[in-house]
Amino acid sequence: MDLTDDQKLEIQELRSAEYLTRRATVPALEEILYEPVSVLDHGFVRTIDYMGDDAAVVQAARVSYGKGTKKVSDDAGLINYLLRHRHTTPFEMCEIKFHIKVPIFIARQWIRHRTANINEYSARYSVLDREFYIPSLDQLASQSTQNHQGRGDVLDGAEANEVLQILKEDSIRNYDHYVEMLNEDPDGNKIDEDRNGLARELARMNLTLNAYTQWYWKIDLHNLLHFLSLRADAHAQYEIRVYADAMLETVKRWVPITYNAFQQYRVGGINLSASALSVVKKLLAGDQITQEDSGMSKREWRELMATLDHK
Amino acid sequence: MDLTDDQKLEIQELRSAEYLTRRATVPALEEILYEPVSVLDHGFVRTIDYMGDDAAVVQAARVSYGKGTKKVSDDAGLINYLLRHRHTTPFEMCEIKFHIKVPIFIARQWIRHRTANINEYSARYSVLDREFYIPSLDQLASQSTQNHQGRGDVLDGAEANEVLQILKEDSIRNYDHYVEMLNEDPDGNKIDEDRNGLARELARMNLTLNAYTQWYWKIDLHNLLHFLSLRADAHAQYEIRVYADAMLETVKRWVPITYNAFQQYRVGGINLSASALSVVKKLLAGDQITQEDSGMSKREWRELMATLDHK
Amino acid sequence: MDLTDDQKLEIQELRSAEYLTRRATVPALEEILYEPVSVLDHGFVRTIDYMGDDAAVVQAARVSYGKGTKKVSDDAGLINYLLRHRHTTPFEMCEIKFHIKVPIFIARQWIRHRTANINEYSARYSVLDREFYIPSLDQLASQSTQNHQGRGDVLDGAEANEVLQILKEDSIRNYDHYVEMLNEDPDGNKIDEDRNGLARELARMNLTLNAYTQWYWKIDLHNLLHFLSLRADAHAQYEIRVYADAMLETVKRWVPITYNAFQQYRVGGINLSASALSVVKKLLAGDQITQEDSGMSKREWRELMATLDHK
Amino acid sequence: MDLTDDQKLEIQELRSAEYLTRRATVPALEEILYEPVSVLDHGFVRTIDYMGDDAAVVQAARVSYGKGTKKVSDDAGLINYLLRHRHTTPFEMCEIKFHIKVPIFIARQWIRHRTANINEYSARYSVLDREFYIPSLDQLASQSTQNHQGRGDVLDGAEANEVLQILKEDSIRNYDHYVEMLNEDPDGNKIDEDRNGLARELARMNLTLNAYTQWYWKIDLHNLLHFLSLRADAHAQYEIRVYADAMLETVKRWVPITYNAFQQYRVGGINLSASALSVVKKLLAGDQITQEDSGMSKREWRELMATLDHK
Repeated sequence: MDLTDDQKLEIQELRSAEYLTRRATVPALEEILYEPVSVLDHGFVRTIDYMGDDAAVVQAARVSYGKGTKKVSDDAGLINYLLRHRHTTPFEMCEIKFHIKVPIFIARQWIRHRTANINEYSARYSVLDREFYIPSLDQLASQSTQNHQGRGDVLDGAEANEVLQILKEDSIRNYDHYVEMLNEDPDGNKIDEDRNGLARELARMNLTLNAYTQWYWKIDLHNLLHFLSLRADAHAQYEIRVYADAMLETVKRWVPITYNAFQQYRVGGINLSASALSVVKKLLAGDQITQEDSGMSKREWRELMATLDHK
Repeated sequence: MDLTDDQKLEIQELRSAEYLTRRATVPALEEILYEPVSVLDHGFVRTIDYMGDDAAVVQAARVSYGKGTKKVSDDAGLINYLLRHRHTTPFEMCEIKFHIKVPIFIARQWIRHRTANINEYSARYSVLDREFYIPSLDQLASQSTQNHQGRGDVLDGAEANEVLQILKEDSIRNYDHYVEMLNEDPDGNKIDEDRNGLARELARMNLTLNAYTQWYWKIDLHNLLHFLSLRADAHAQYEIRVYADAMLETVKRWVPITYNAFQQYRVGGINLSASALSVVKKLLAGDQITQEDSGMSKREWRELMATLDHK
Repeated sequence: MDLTDDQKLEIQELRSAEYLTRRATVPALEEILYEPVSVLDHGFVRTIDYMGDDAAVVQAARVSYGKGTKKVSDDAGLINYLLRHRHTTPFEMCEIKFHIKVPIFIARQWIRHRTANINEYSARYSVLDREFYIPSLDQLASQSTQNHQGRGDVLDGAEANEVLQILKEDSIRNYDHYVEMLNEDPDGNKIDEDRNGLARELARMNLTLNAYTQWYWKIDLHNLLHFLSLRADAHAQYEIRVYADAMLETVKRWVPITYNAFQQYRVGGINLSASALSVVKKLLAGDQITQEDSGMSKREWRELMATLDHK
Repeated sequence: MDLTDDQKLEIQELRSAEYLTRRATVPALEEILYEPVSVLDHGFVRTIDYMGDDAAVVQAARVSYGKGTKKVSDDAGLINYLLRHRHTTPFEMCEIKFHIKVPIFIARQWIRHRTANINEYSARYSVLDREFYIPSLDQLASQSTQNHQGRGDVLDGAEANEVLQILKEDSIRNYDHYVEMLNEDPDGNKIDEDRNGLARELARMNLTLNAYTQWYWKIDLHNLLHFLSLRADAHAQYEIRVYADAMLETVKRWVPITYNAFQQYRVGGINLSASALSVVKKLLAGDQITQEDSGMSKREWRELMATLDHK
């Protein structure tokens, strides 16, 4: 992560100012407010603003369920109950805003989640920075032979180096051609007075998908948890998972009770299908049951046995 | 508006606590935070929390448009530009949360706007209060003869009094029957030990649509302005317009620059159809043009002439 | 369900016309198109239109995953895979439109689901029908003592009859007062020439929450399944569950493969929390484990044991 | 647009099959169903499915407004009224599904519209085609000096040719490196047995933003019109506008009455701000008014005078 001096100064100014507020305030989150958390080689996640806390979730639930919530003795019990029974609206009462810098091919995965508010840096209006994601050697993996989206073994040295060289050279060449076509230096002045320069909205098409973009991304806690349950998961692509992990740490500071419930009921929990439930019941009752009799496919059976540590 | 002593105490406590924050803070809005603004006979609007300010709109726009925004000299100019050109995403970067008490038949209009987060008091879980909206005499209007949704003249004394009596008597009778069927006093104890009492989720069906409900309603600034452009409008039903007006006052405190732009480009502005634009051009050029030649219906023509103060 | 002669004629006409189309067409759903399925005492669900079928889900998935889906031998296998792994977007490619008549207090639950398109009959513009939901005797249940939203035992004869009488009398009295205030007969003519009549947007507030409303409700298959997983569930209020059940039958006709997957992975499936999974593993391994050691609350433990048929 | 023989065959099969349906059917749209309309050099728009027609809009409006719509004599009058008064929900009752092939940098603009359902070809699972958008010479324009997002004059021959060469060479080189890193031929076999090949989810990052992607895009008529009002507009980037234009032609076939109303009230219409309305009134009244007195900026004044053909 490379911040310019201007950006460092701006962050310093934002962090040094303090105001009095009557709003719910979370000191643990205030501590890191505005500070960029480094992700990948040039990316970052910065928490820019937030609304609400664990108590706001509880407050909304108590409005909805009124007396119905009085018996639940404490906030943690109520939040557990809400998450477990998928009462999602109280979690929508909290909101958070991030400033994120991310490679374009990951931004394209990210934006499939349609429930957030987004303001992205526009290459129609402005020139992108000369920064590209180049994976570290331990992330240069082959295609998985197990499934069609994952990664397999890490590439060996020679092949890995060849890949790195291609990625670096192509990124830089294409970027330099982008600037050449724009005919515009970083201050917005013409490089070559005899050329007009290509419009920014066109020149950008020469950039590679590992160029970095950035955006403001604002989302409510319920939808953030949904995003994190998909993207902080082992099945998610590494390059988006590291962003999800960084945001998960923010959630831990922001709403620690909700974070614990999320670990308990989402991250660490599992779904059993009707057939899988039936298998578990039979196993517990001491009955014989095989994959063939279970109504499950071989793959589902294998995954269930692995999940249950059963052989 | 009738607050219980408990509620008054809670508001007092919330208002007396202050915290240090690094977040964008709006003193004019902090002043009224948590305080209920009285609406109709028993309703209210309370601002409970907010995120962002005018500067957050500007900040998001500058991320999106980068250098493209440098020429716009000041925040007001940029916000005007955004609202005028319907660049809506920067306004989504601000969020506000209200606590609202409103009659059910108005809540049903309100909830058609699907872009907000809502936690409503649930009559499946809890018993509703004995409060109903009874219009004031100057709001007891007849059906409009002009259009199919509006109101016409105010009812005269005798008819108005008859209406008021019906509304009051039916509301109270139905509420008292609701309690009787529930067989549950305000503390949740059985009234008549010999009866079971009807489930709350069923008994509520006997209530009238002027019973008050309440909810937490959280929305971003863009969608709030859209709601207000429809509901703070002269064509909106009076009973929802007074809520919109109260929220518009909050917007004025919260984001005064955006509020001014909203007045200029939405509230005070108009749409001209292709035909209407053509008529205006001809009038300005000194050409003759009649309704028959205009391609407009009589009603559209009449409305256009009224809008233009032209005869 | 009482249809007017006009409505019966309209349905007959719609059903008798047939057109040639190149679109995906589902004969089993065409069979019941436009026909009202009776729900509660006066309500109904009518399927009005649809887009797509099981093959459309498969087609969308194959566009997304390309070669990744070639190995999955058949459509059922792919749809199972999608539902199991919560790949939800292919199910969004199908759409269905219902015409529904439902009591207002149930419509209010229903509309919390914000992902549908809705056009509701407006009592600002038109006069509602003289129809109210009156529960059958076997649905007149007491408040559950177990939880705060459910129903317990059915009321005994005397109490039940008293409740029924209240509901009927109050509904009718309030409706008749509504008409009296409107001063408008079913043909839209004044009843009493000497009175103006109260505006419809006001008079409606005197109606009870068991009055019937109706709407067109259009939703994609993914969001419909989400709605049904919550509302066709044993925890849902009876009066909304019967609508969900009726729509589930429609789903079965429309997309039978998706329906089966839905039964397998949602309706018949369960979620296990991290602690519950740990308990199951220990039980399978033959280890001792008690509620006290499990990290689960007594209630969660009890529910888990019931789910597993374990004692 | 280059279709493979397989694709041509598939389209032919889809187009040759016909079914009987009771659903609303639009012959003019059936005519072109499944057929790709060529856009840019390799892109296309194909209408894949649809639900509803002009009559479905009218039907939904009549359910909402009941008797309130009886006075409006015909469907066109009602649809005009709805669009003019921004009664948007009846237009949500129609739905359409497109199959679209589009360069990635345009797909990124497109997906900002969050109200559609999308299934995109995934380069995590499959290998992209060797197709890139290369602008035609008359589209190779310089950056506008007037505004920060538009295009100015077309580049002259020498500069244009240089740009074309860069775009072509970089696209192809990067694609060929992509295949080399994948180590996978079009049939999915290894090219070089001694290398593992980089995972698809990584290799794709070397592609340029003018590579083509494709998706299924499903949206309701209201949101489609909103998209088209922004993207079929002169201010939209040419490369997305041509897609919007193609879809607008589809709308014309599908819902011709709505199309006409859209032209009248959106495409050909304008918004006047409060100040602009005041200026128009004064001009019509024969009063003197200058930019300085108008409360409008120089730019807004200039644009208003141009819009009104006034000097």
